[in-house]
Amino acid sequence: MDWSGWGDPARRRPLPESLQRLLEQALGMRAPSGTPVAREEVRLPSVALTAKVEGALAAVVGEAEVHTDVASRLAHAGGKSTPDLLRRRLVEQSAPDAVVRPGSHDEVVDLLRVCAEGSIAVVPFGGGTSVVGGVQPARDGHAAVVALDVGRLDRLVEADKTSMTARLEPGLRGPEAERLLGGRGLTLGHFPQSFEYATIGGFAATRSSGQASSGYGRFDEMVVGLRLATPRGTLELGRAPASAAGPDLRQLVLGSEGAFGVITEVTVRVHAVPEECVDEAWRFADFGSGVEAFRRLAQAGRLPTIVRLSDEAETFANLAMADDVGGGGAPEGGCLAILGFEGDAERVAASRGELAGLLEEYGGSPLGTELGARWREGRYSAPYLRDAVLDAGGLVETLETATSWSRLQTTYAAVRDALTRALADQGTPPLVLCHVSHVYPTGASLYFTVAAAQGADPISQWVQAKTAASDAIAECGATISHHHAVGLDHRDWMEAEIGELGIEVLRAVKNTLDPDGILNPGKLVPPA
Amino acid sequence: MDWSGWGDPARRRPLPESLQRLLEQALGMRAPSGTPVAREEVRLPSVALTAKVEGALAAVVGEAEVHTDVASRLAHAGGKSTPDLLRRRLVEQSAPDAVVRPGSHDEVVDLLRVCAEGSIAVVPFGGGTSVVGGVQPARDGHAAVVALDVGRLDRLVEADKTSMTARLEPGLRGPEAERLLGGRGLTLGHFPQSFEYATIGGFAATRSSGQASSGYGRFDEMVVGLRLATPRGTLELGRAPASAAGPDLRQLVLGSEGAFGVITEVTVRVHAVPEECVDEAWRFADFGSGVEAFRRLAQAGRLPTIVRLSDEAETFANLAMADDVGGGGAPEGGCLAILGFEGDAERVAASRGELAGLLEEYGGSPLGTELGARWREGRYSAPYLRDAVLDAGGLVETLETATSWSRLQTTYAAVRDALTRALADQGTPPLVLCHVSHVYPTGASLYFTVAAAQGADPISQWVQAKTAASDAIAECGATISHHHAVGLDHRDWMEAEIGELGIEVLRAVKNTLDPDGILNPGKLVPPA
Repeated sequence: MDWSGWGDPARRRPLPESLQRLLEQALGMRAPSGTPVAREEVRLPSVALTAKVEGALAAVVGEAEVHTDVASRLAHAGGKSTPDLLRRRLVEQSAPDAVVRPGSHDEVVDLLRVCAEGSIAVVPFGGGTSVVGGVQPARDGHAAVVALDVGRLDRLVEADKTSMTARLEPGLRGPEAERLLGGRGLTLGHFPQSFEYATIGGFAATRSSGQASSGYGRFDEMVVGLRLATPRGTLELGRAPASAAGPDLRQLVLGSEGAFGVITEVTVRVHAVPEECVDEAWRFADFGSGVEAFRRLAQAGRLPTIVRLSDEAETFANLAMADDVGGGGAPEGGCLAILGFEGDAERVAASRGELAGLLEEYGGSPLGTELGARWREGRYSAPYLRDAVLDAGGLVETLETATSWSRLQTTYAAVRDALTRALADQGTPPLVLCHVSHVYPTGASLYFTVAAAQGADPISQWVQAKTAASDAIAECGATISHHHAVGLDHRDWMEAEIGELGIEVLRAVKNTLDPDGILNPGKLVPPA
Repeated sequence: MDWSGWGDPARRRPLPESLQRLLEQALGMRAPSGTPVAREEVRLPSVALTAKVEGALAAVVGEAEVHTDVASRLAHAGGKSTPDLLRRRLVEQSAPDAVVRPGSHDEVVDLLRVCAEGSIAVVPFGGGTSVVGGVQPARDGHAAVVALDVGRLDRLVEADKTSMTARLEPGLRGPEAERLLGGRGLTLGHFPQSFEYATIGGFAATRSSGQASSGYGRFDEMVVGLRLATPRGTLELGRAPASAAGPDLRQLVLGSEGAFGVITEVTVRVHAVPEECVDEAWRFADFGSGVEAFRRLAQAGRLPTIVRLSDEAETFANLAMADDVGGGGAPEGGCLAILGFEGDAERVAASRGELAGLLEEYGGSPLGTELGARWREGRYSAPYLRDAVLDAGGLVETLETATSWSRLQTTYAAVRDALTRALADQGTPPLVLCHVSHVYPTGASLYFTVAAAQGADPISQWVQAKTAASDAIAECGATISHHHAVGLDHRDWMEAEIGELGIEVLRAVKNTLDPDGILNPGKLVPPA
C-alpha cells in the first residue's frame, strides 16, 4: 500500500478529463495543489523508545520485527481518510515510534504486557485502511506509541466443512483470505471497497460491511467465534451458533476498534463458492421509487446478493464519467440500480425471474447485465480517484449512515443539505452524491460522496462539512456509522449514539481489559 | 398462572394412563408423592420491609401497587423449573417480601433509586416462567427483596408499518402481544413453549428462542431497539438496522436477566400475518440422517419456518402417548420430523415442493400434515404434564444446549450418557429423549427431556443429574444454554462459557449500572 495515497502506486492514474472538467466548471476547482512530498523530505519526531523498552519488545518478537526506520513508521502513520491523505502531503508529520510485528497470539499477549509495564501506547494495525482516524498513532500521555502490525498472523488455521466455518488469523487481507478459502471451494463473501488491502482483524474490529451484505451478511453476522489478546490476558468467545448464556460478549469485541484488545483469531461462517455471479442493472424513475422497491425486496425476504441504488446525482455523475473511468455508464436521467445474484445457476435464474416482476411493479426497467459487469470490474477502483482529485486541487470524500425506512428520506435530505450548506458557506459549493447499498427489513444505509474545490485550508474545510453532516445524522436519529466505524472522527457523536451511560459502560469494559489505557488511545471511547 | 404449578389450574389433568404405565414399568416409579400443599398451609418468612421503605415504594407506585399479601408473594416465589415446583410442595417456603407493580418507565427508574438507597434487592419479574432459577427471590445480604412485576407495562406503544417494527412494553404476554399486533395485520413470530405466560421483557432479558426461529429468528435477532432502566438512569439503544458505531450494547442488555437493569421497552421487527401455516410430518430412518437433512437445509438457505426432529427415543415416547395426550402420534420406528411453512400461499407451496425433493435425498418419507397439525395444537401443553408426573411420584425435566454441526453427535451422546449415568447411579434409571428444534448454518440446538422415578430427595436427585449434564456440555465445548438462559442454575458454568476475564467484563458492566448490587442478586454473574 502506498504510504501517501491509496493502494498500488502503479495503478495510480491522473484525473480523468471528464471529472477534471466537472470539478472546474461545476465546482470552481482552481490550480493543482501538487503531489505529496517525497518520503525523503518528510520530517518525523525522533523515536521516543528507550533502549530498554526496545530491547523488551525485541525479546518478544525478535529484533528483526521491531522496525524504527522512516519507511516503516510512515507506512503506519495513519489511515486513508481525505484528511489523512492531506496530512501525508505536509513536511511535518507524525508517526508511531516503532512498528512491531508479532508472529503468534502469545507474542501479542506478551507485547501488551511489555507495553503496559512501559506505558507504551499500542495501535493495533491491519490494512491501515481506516477512514475515521482509527489507526492514528496517538501517544496520549504515554511514553511512546507503537503500531502493532498483525501482518504476520496470516494463516487459515482450520476449515470445518461440516459446520461451514473457518478459523482465520487477523492479518489476512481480503484477497489472500479468499485465495486460501477458495482452494477448498469456500468463500467468505465479504467484499467491502477496501477489500484489496483491509484485513480480517480489521473487518471484525470495525464491524465492516461488504458490497454483498444482502447475500452473505455483515461481517459481525459472519463471526461465530473470536480470540482477543488483552493486557489482562486472553478472552475466547463463541461456543455455539446461538446462545442464551448471558450477554453476547462477541458483540463487545466486534466494533471495539483495538481499544479493548487485539483480535488474534476469528472463526467465521463460510459458503460454497457460487457457481454463478450475475449483476443486473435497472433504471428507476427516481430515488424514491427505487428505495420503495428495495424496501419491498427486503421485507419480502427476497433480497439478491448485492443491491445498490444510486440517487439522481450519483447516476448523473456516473454517466458523465462513463468513458473515462470504465466502471461507469448509466441511463440518461432517473436512478441506476445494480442487483447482483450469486449461487447455483438454477437458483440465480429463479431469483432473477422472480425479482424482475417485483421491480417492474415499482417502475423499474431492466438495462441488462453489461453495466453490472462493468460495476463489478471497477468496484475497488474508486479510492484511486481520490488521490488524483487531490493532486488537481479538488477534494472528494465519503461518509455514511443507516436508519429505519421511515426515516430514510428525511435523513437523506438533511445530510445532503448539511453538506451542501457547510461547503457553500466556505465558498466551495459541493456536488453531493448518494447511494443505498446495504438493505435490511427495517431500514437501510445511505452512502454519500462529496466533491468540491479545495479551499485554502482543505483539512479544516472538510472537518467543517463532516461536522455538519454528523450533527445532521445525530439529529435525525440515525447511526453515526453503518460500516466506517468510530475512530477519532466519530467519537464526539458517541454520546448521541449510546448516551452518557452507554459511554460509561464502554469505559468500564476498557478499564477492565486495558487498565493502563495503552490500547489505541483516543479512539472509540470519549475521554471522561 | 398457578402459583404452585404450570399455567391455568383448570387445564391441569391427571397423568395419562400410557405415561403412568411407562413410568411404572420402565422406570420403576413408586407410589404417588401427593399434590402440593394448600396455599394456606405454606409458611413464609415475615415481611422484612420497614414502614419507611414500604412508604417510599408506595410513594412511587401508589399504595395499591405494593403487595405484601401471601398470595402475591407466593405468585412471585420463583420460576417453573422442576426444583421450583418441588419447592412449592413444601410447607416452609421463601418468597419476596413484597411485589411492586410500576406503571411507567419513570416509576421503574424511581423504584430502583429507592431500592438502591434502602439496600433492597430487586427481582425483575415478567411471566415468572424461568426454568433456571432466574427469578429466585434472593436477598443476598440486602435488607429485603422485592419482585418488580412489569405486568402493568403492557402497551403496544407504536407500530411502524413502513419499517415493519413495533415498540412493545415488557409486561405484554405472548398472546396479548400477538393480539395487539394482529389487530394491525402484524405478528412477531415468537412462539416459545412458555408463550402463553412469558412476557416481551423476559424474552429479551433471556435471549428466548421460539419454535418458529428458523423463519422469524431468535428474539435477540428481532430486537432493533431497547430501553433499560437502571439505578444509574436510563440506557436507550438502537438507532439503525445495523451500525458500526462501536460495540453493540443492545447485545449486553439482551441476556442480562435483570442483573443490569429493567427492560421497559423493546422495539422489535414484525411481519405480516402469514396467509397460510402448514405443518408437515416426515419420517427419517434414524436421528443421524434427519440431522444431515436439516444441516443441508440450513446451509442451502432453504429452512422453512419451523423445523423439529425427534430422536428415536422421543419419537417412540410420542407414539406411546399418542392416544392420551393428543399432541402425539408418530411413525413406528425411526425419527419424526415436523416442518412448518408460513407465508403467502404461493411461497408455501413452492417451498414445500422444493424441500420435499431435498428431504427424500436423505431418506425422508412424508407422513402428511395431520401429525403436524396435532403438534401445533398441543405445542404449549407439555408443561402441564410435568405437574401430573410429579403428583404421580415421577420426575420430568428438560435441558438444552447448542453446538456446531461437527460437534453435534458427540455432544448428543455425551449429555445423554451423563444424564443416564447420574440417574442410574441413584437407583432411578431415566428415559432420555432429545430433539433438534433450532437450526443454523453452522450448528443446531439439542433439547433433552428426562423422565425418571422420584428418589427420596428429588431436588438433590435432579441437581446431581443436571450437574452431570452441564459438565458434559461444557466439556464438549457446547454452550450451557441455547434458550433457557443462565439464572442461578447455570451460573457455575459461566466460567467455562466465557472465561474468568469474560466474567470480569460482566462484573464491570454490572458495577457500572448497578453499583449497589441490588438487581437480581446471584443470577447470571458468578460472585467474585
